[in-house]
Amino acid sequence: MRMYDIILKKRRGLELTTEEINFFVNGFNKDEIPDYQVSSLMMAIFFKGMNKRETADLTMAMAHSGDILDLSRIEGIKVDKHSTGGVGDSVTLVLAPLVASLGIPVAKMSGRGLGHTGGTIDKLETFKGFSVELDNDTFINNVNNIKIAIAGQTKSLAPADKKLYALRDVTATVDNISLIASSIMSKKIASGADAIVLDVKVGDGAFMKNLQDAKNLATEMVSIGEQLGRKTVAIISNMDQPLGFAIGNALEVKEALDTLKGNGPKDLEELVLEIGAQMVVLSEKAHSVEEAKKLLRENLTNGKALNKLKELVESQGGDSSSIYNEELLPKSKFKLIINSDREGYISKILSEDVGLLAMELGAGRKTKDSKIDLAVGIVLKKKIGDKVKKGEELATIYCNSEEAGKSVLSKLKDVIIISDVYEEYKLIYEIVK
Amino acid sequence: MRMYDIILKKRRGLELTTEEINFFVNGFNKDEIPDYQVSSLMMAIFFKGMNKRETADLTMAMAHSGDILDLSRIEGIKVDKHSTGGVGDSVTLVLAPLVASLGIPVAKMSGRGLGHTGGTIDKLETFKGFSVELDNDTFINNVNNIKIAIAGQTKSLAPADKKLYALRDVTATVDNISLIASSIMSKKIASGADAIVLDVKVGDGAFMKNLQDAKNLATEMVSIGEQLGRKTVAIISNMDQPLGFAIGNALEVKEALDTLKGNGPKDLEELVLEIGAQMVVLSEKAHSVEEAKKLLRENLTNGKALNKLKELVESQGGDSSSIYNEELLPKSKFKLIINSDREGYISKILSEDVGLLAMELGAGRKTKDSKIDLAVGIVLKKKIGDKVKKGEELATIYCNSEEAGKSVLSKLKDVIIISDVYEEYKLIYEIVK
Repeated sequence: MRMYDIILKKRRGLELTTEEINFFVNGFNKDEIPDYQVSSLMMAIFFKGMNKRETADLTMAMAHSGDILDLSRIEGIKVDKHSTGGVGDSVTLVLAPLVASLGIPVAKMSGRGLGHTGGTIDKLETFKGFSVELDNDTFINNVNNIKIAIAGQTKSLAPADKKLYALRDVTATVDNISLIASSIMSKKIASGADAIVLDVKVGDGAFMKNLQDAKNLATEMVSIGEQLGRKTVAIISNMDQPLGFAIGNALEVKEALDTLKGNGPKDLEELVLEIGAQMVVLSEKAHSVEEAKKLLRENLTNGKALNKLKELVESQGGDSSSIYNEELLPKSKFKLIINSDREGYISKILSEDVGLLAMELGAGRKTKDSKIDLAVGIVLKKKIGDKVKKGEELATIYCNSEEAGKSVLSKLKDVIIISDVYEEYKLIYEIVK
Repeated sequence: MRMYDIILKKRRGLELTTEEINFFVNGFNKDEIPDYQVSSLMMAIFFKGMNKRETADLTMAMAHSGDILDLSRIEGIKVDKHSTGGVGDSVTLVLAPLVASLGIPVAKMSGRGLGHTGGTIDKLETFKGFSVELDNDTFINNVNNIKIAIAGQTKSLAPADKKLYALRDVTATVDNISLIASSIMSKKIASGADAIVLDVKVGDGAFMKNLQDAKNLATEMVSIGEQLGRKTVAIISNMDQPLGFAIGNALEVKEALDTLKGNGPKDLEELVLEIGAQMVVLSEKAHSVEEAKKLLRENLTNGKALNKLKELVESQGGDSSSIYNEELLPKSKFKLIINSDREGYISKILSEDVGLLAMELGAGRKTKDSKIDLAVGIVLKKKIGDKVKKGEELATIYCNSEEAGKSVLSKLKDVIIISDVYEEYKLIYEIVK
């Protein structure tokens, strides 16, 4: 088999066989096939596409390029969750303990990643001493004992995907639905999931900018799951404004704690319940989404979900005192307040810009080596559809440099758009399964 | 400027600026832009194409990636000739001395190349001692003194083209008209030509398999020439059967000598006169193609062209005795004859297969390091349209291994097709200018 022939075949729009896909993924992973051939294949795939079978094969080949996590020693159906990434997204921080509090095993691998704010792991490290470096036995024992463990992604998790993504990232071949879908799903498969719930974000602050692309990506991932024997459900959710009010690490942790106490932002709670309910149904702990939501809501108000977070933090060496005393969370030196210049209704909050402004304050990583400032960020006071009076507070900026804060303040004003007309905001567009 | 943005721009089907094209060619040539980005751009160009302006810019950028030969010290208009490569093609061997014999300067750079038989240089090395390693002064002085010099292509001739071609060759991005055209033209521009005559071959034994592709390539190259201020004419010629009768190095030299003596195969002479006439007209030594052909024909019969070859060979240190005594040319140990099984008309001679069979005998290079056997090859006795009787000779195989010869004999029979119907063979399809 020759890589040249595989490139030519795809360039001509023909279907690649399972053997051909395994050949190029393994060869590339072992440095036996040069990156210049792989990048040219990626561009041919960009133009000619892959069918569902090819996409599933690519997923499997990448999943098997490293270790597949063996979760067989964990009792019950292991349901994993993945979000395609948004602004102010602290869903996992609420969802993982909430679902585990119903006795459902949550064995989660999580990444740090680049972005406007840190990943779930960065946020969990707000709890001093919390460690995600768990050996395999501890990870599995914790899930069996307290139903939850969150570990950092190891290097051996789908290494071919990592390598391929890095190459696509510099050769303008990222934005192809089949390639994106197989990249995400390969990591879920390698993480040992029996079933998967996906949160596909769409809108200004998301990778998918329009609903049709988001639907296509959701459908593609559900199809991969189906072909590979993993029940998969995708929720398409709106990212045309940040989720919740907080954008920043400790600020999002505070918001997550509020939500686990039943006092969270309406949209964050709604999305957590929707994703959670799908996980509960896939875990066969409820017969319907309605029944699942009822169970989840109960644990948000009876303290069980919050207590599960406490157990998680303590089991992984973290200081849980801030969970019941939010005053102990990292705090910024300065607070700046933005007031409205006019009366009207909030009609748009440009999520991506808000995210970039949070990053400017130090909340996110620009490069792999950037250090995150856990305390800084932005807290919105109004969301789309809210009425606002002249002089009323629109948002607060939390910063450790007054200069940076002032610079962000002047720009933030321009990305919170106020109009005379009330507009409704729809959070959840569709469930694809 | 970032290579990523250039790839993305072309992927979206947009036109690249002159600056962007210079940026990627220079960056790639200096190893500052990695090959994986360039191969992905090449695939995007394959799908989205380049317009005439971009193609001319690419040609110029590649031509300027190394030294541009300065032929200004040579008097007169320097017309170069290029063929896209065929089977049994000894045109240059006849054409160069023939045109020079009319007092037109022929300053030719020639390659060895891979292929069924060697390049012009390999064939010239049939004359013992002949050297193509000429320093710049000798090259120019020879052209001024005897109107002809043939040198090997230096490494510094359009190095970016060489690098880019090598990358395209392993990434399935060779067959794009703009890329092929700019590759050929960049070397002609770098070789210092004032005007260019192209022989674009089409058919079974050529790179271009159909007439439309050949026309497109010819038009593209003529357009590049026009934009870059070099008068360019392209002849589209048929390669559905080998040119002339001989396929093999010494065998083609003998055929070239016969042609220079006015006794060559009809098709070889026709093509030589057509290309030569265009060169003579571009050199302003004749007012019309008809007048030019008359001048050329004269020098084939009065011995002047043959004498010019003698001067060329001697000026570059070669032994010219075989020019007037063909018996001195390298000879193979064995000769095998193929006779016809049936009566009829030759309807097809599969050029590519004939070429590969000659290579099997040792006439061509499989890899850069292969050694060529100058003596071996195939001589056809019949061409398309010829009547043949049962038992009549179809071809002779010249070999140094009887075993190889016999193996080729059995296969050669299958690629000379005889039918009951007479078919006419058209050698020259079109002149594009």
